[in-house]
Amino acid sequence: MGVVHKRKGESPFWQWEGVAIERYGAEGASATKQVLIGEADGAPNFALRYFTIPVGQASNLDHHAHDHGVLIVHGRARVLLGERYEEVSAGDVVYVAGWERHQFVNIGDEPLTFLCIVPSKTAQPDVCAVPARKTEPEAK
Amino acid sequence: MGVVHKRKGESPFWQWEGVAIERYGAEGASATKQVLIGEADGAPNFALRYFTIPVGQASNLDHHAHDHGVLIVHGRARVLLGERYEEVSAGDVVYVAGWERHQFVNIGDEPLTFLCIVPSKTAQPDVCAVPARKTEPEAK
Repeated sequence: MGVVHKRKGESPFWQWEGVAIERYGAEGASATKQVLIGEADGAPNFALRYFTIPVGQASNLDHHAHDHGVLIVHGRARVLLGERYEEVSAGDVVYVAGWERHQFVNIGDEPLTFLCIVPSKTAQPDVCAVPARKTEPEAK
Repeated sequence: MGVVHKRKGESPFWQWEGVAIERYGAEGASATKQVLIGEADGAPNFALRYFTIPVGQASNLDHHAHDHGVLIVHGRARVLLGERYEEVSAGDVVYVAGWERHQFVNIGDEPLTFLCIVPSKTAQPDVCAVPARKTEPEAK
C-alpha cells in the first residue's frame, strides 16, 4: 500500500513525518541518514535515503557490488568516482556504478545534503542467479 | 563507470547537462520527462526520472506491477494511491506500491515537478523467477 511521508523540516536539514533520524558514518562523525522509502514502507526493489554531511566531514569511502543514484539537495561536494574527482552542487546528479570506489566530501561552508537511491538486496540480480545445470550442448 | 549530470536550469523547471527533455503524457499534454539516471548511464537496477506537470494537468492514471518512489520538488499535487487521495507539496515523499493505481494531479497555480524512481525491468524479481521443479518433499 502506498505511503506518504510529509516533509516537516526546512532546508538545509530536511526531516519527514514517520522517518527516524539515524546517526551515520565513522565514530565521532555527526552525519545523519534518513530512510525515506525502504523495507518499512514495504518497498521490495529500492530504498531512498537522505544524508546530511556537516561542514568538513565526508561520507564513508565505500566500495561494493551495488550501485547508487545520488542527487545533491544542498551544498557542495567533491565526489570520488573510481579514480577521478568531480565537484558537484545542489541539483547535480551522480550515478555511482557497482564496485566503483566513491566518497562525498563536503567542501562548502554549509551542510551537504543529498538523496541516495540503493537497490534492495532482494532486487539484486545475483540473488536471483540460478545454479547452472549441466546439459549436453544442443545439436544445431 | 560513474556519471555526473550537472543541473543547468533553475527551479521550477530544472534541466541537466546530457539529459534530453522528452514529452510525456497524453496527446495534447505539455508535461515533460527527463531520465536523470537510466540505461544510458549503465544503470542496471533502477532509473531516476524528473517530471514536470503544468498547471491544470496530471500524470497518467497508471496501474502496473512495478513500484515507484516519488519526491515532490516543486508545487502541489493531489495524489491518487489505490482508493485514497492525499495532498502533497514540495519535499514530501510518496511510495507507490506495485499494482497500486496512482496519479499525480497538479492542484496548484505553479508547475508541479517531482523525482520518480522506478526499478529496472532487469531488476524485477519476476524476471528472475525460475519455473518450479517438481521434487519429492525432503525427509526430515
